[in-house]
Amino acid sequence: MFELYFTPGPTALYFTAEEHIKNAIKTGVCSTSHRGQWFKDIYKECQQNLRELMDIPDDYHILITSSANEAWERIIENCVEEESYHISMGAFSQRFAKISTQLGRKAHELIVEEGTVPAFDAIDVPDSAEIITICLNESSTGASFPLETINALREKYPDKLIAIDGVSGVPVIPINFKNIDTLYFSVQKAFGLPAGLGIWIVNNRCLEKANNMVEKGNVIGSYHRLPDMVEKAKVYQTAETPNILGIYTLSKVANDMLEKGILPIRREIDYKSAILNQVIESHPQMHHFVENDLHRSKTVKVVKTDFESKQLIEYLKNKKMHIGTGYGPYKNEQVRIANFPTHSKEQMEMLVDLIEAFRL
Amino acid sequence: MFELYFTPGPTALYFTAEEHIKNAIKTGVCSTSHRGQWFKDIYKECQQNLRELMDIPDDYHILITSSANEAWERIIENCVEEESYHISMGAFSQRFAKISTQLGRKAHELIVEEGTVPAFDAIDVPDSAEIITICLNESSTGASFPLETINALREKYPDKLIAIDGVSGVPVIPINFKNIDTLYFSVQKAFGLPAGLGIWIVNNRCLEKANNMVEKGNVIGSYHRLPDMVEKAKVYQTAETPNILGIYTLSKVANDMLEKGILPIRREIDYKSAILNQVIESHPQMHHFVENDLHRSKTVKVVKTDFESKQLIEYLKNKKMHIGTGYGPYKNEQVRIANFPTHSKEQMEMLVDLIEAFRL
Repeated sequence: MFELYFTPGPTALYFTAEEHIKNAIKTGVCSTSHRGQWFKDIYKECQQNLRELMDIPDDYHILITSSANEAWERIIENCVEEESYHISMGAFSQRFAKISTQLGRKAHELIVEEGTVPAFDAIDVPDSAEIITICLNESSTGASFPLETINALREKYPDKLIAIDGVSGVPVIPINFKNIDTLYFSVQKAFGLPAGLGIWIVNNRCLEKANNMVEKGNVIGSYHRLPDMVEKAKVYQTAETPNILGIYTLSKVANDMLEKGILPIRREIDYKSAILNQVIESHPQMHHFVENDLHRSKTVKVVKTDFESKQLIEYLKNKKMHIGTGYGPYKNEQVRIANFPTHSKEQMEMLVDLIEAFRL
Repeated sequence: MFELYFTPGPTALYFTAEEHIKNAIKTGVCSTSHRGQWFKDIYKECQQNLRELMDIPDDYHILITSSANEAWERIIENCVEEESYHISMGAFSQRFAKISTQLGRKAHELIVEEGTVPAFDAIDVPDSAEIITICLNESSTGASFPLETINALREKYPDKLIAIDGVSGVPVIPINFKNIDTLYFSVQKAFGLPAGLGIWIVNNRCLEKANNMVEKGNVIGSYHRLPDMVEKAKVYQTAETPNILGIYTLSKVANDMLEKGILPIRREIDYKSAILNQVIESHPQMHHFVENDLHRSKTVKVVKTDFESKQLIEYLKNKKMHIGTGYGPYKNEQVRIANFPTHSKEQMEMLVDLIEAFRL
């Protein structure tokens, strides 16, 4: 039996990814020029498949970055002249505020208790903030930001840009792109691909903002300036030689997900989430870190353990199943379990049975 | 027979790369956490193998970027407060000057005729310039910057940083790191790996410069600020989830090159370069673009054709051999042929025989 990875990312490869990578190597995808027609076809197909899978409107641009970290930097460089507003629910969402500060902007930050999400009324964005940043699924705590709060923020602050970190949420969580301006993710989480590729989706409001900043004499970066990235993406090109193998594999996996259907994928996620919840709730020595079940992520379960968490991790590892440690200060008292499209119902049932049987 | 890629990058994969990628997938390299010991071991081994292969001194740091484009940006952000000096021999070396300007610096530029390199006496760096940037091997023209000029520049300008674009030159061209401060390359050229990974090597003078800039209140970037990258690299970590598969494969290929021996690799490059030169010089309708044979790259041959170059390209493609077009404005009147470590003597002899037989 192979090792099974339920880690929150990097995680198990999507079950078709290996075959696609082998085909890419065999057919010469890794050797083709990024200026040639073959690469343009690959990037075009990748854009089309993501657009269909994630219901991305035609006037949103699908750009290539190297990571979600890079998207944080590019969003601040291109879309924030002076001030940003960040909703921080844990380690990952907090980094966005840090990056804004490092780039010389004034970062307003609403920090909520870890394991919770803010109430709509608690979100008070100053007039001076140009952007609101939200993490859809805080992978360090397992808290999931409510979609209705995003929609309400759009209504309350129509002039501010809204940026969504989709990392461990998309394509599972259905985003209404009309209510946001930019969304980014890296591919090693819910898409189940090798790390080293990020996707950055932007609308024309972001582009106008960047163009405005240029007109005012601001520096907005160099080879990955947003206006240049959009121009290149329109003709299925990139500034640098990109991760062609990654773009190819993402396109193929997105297509496989389309063929399976996003609704069956979401139903499977729901089923697996339910059996995971059940075993956590019935186990005498385990507890959800996110207490409010409405705010509990379906794709990343964060579990407090009454014992040292590595005991469960080691027990499962001996059965060739890998789950994640708690994040940062919670390393020894929590575990994190991913529930992504690549994890089959049968695999999740096996994991759940093992956890159920675990007693110290 | 497989397709053979003599394109200047992306190019043929190093002949062992496919096996390493398959092993990586089989053993779970793509699913392992970038915060875990396994990743640290991979990055450490990669650093060690590159250090040995390229003779990189112990006090030079080996960092991970996504591309050479990113290294351009990071070098300007972290090592240039106000002014830079660029030796531009073609499209690739010129981009560095452009990036410096885009980032708000004053970029001095010595532009030499394409297909040539500047004489040492022609290089007059203003006192105000903080860095001198040089492309070791201008992949658009096939001109190779003389190592003795780099050494002479070091002697003449000991206080200025020297940055080397090593892209299609390393590990073939032997660099004396003591005479330079930073060197970067992407892996899809002479290392023969899938694109989407860059290596950025820096010494402590670069680091001090970045720290100085921070003290003066300059912005030096965010998640890839040089001081943070160096700190992380010391413990074999990166800020973002990096291209783990790429780092693993680079490490393994560097090790394969070490086992073969860098001297045998260089001797093979010399032999293949000689037979390529011979066929170019003996062919009645082909001519070297770089006239001075001392400045002609061994790893990227740029050839003027008296006919439309795509006729040769198509002729070879029908025999399953791929060579590059001319770069930019030279697209239709030149071809570019790579001579990298992955190209065997036998493959190069086959290519040379076909070119020799080609007549319009």
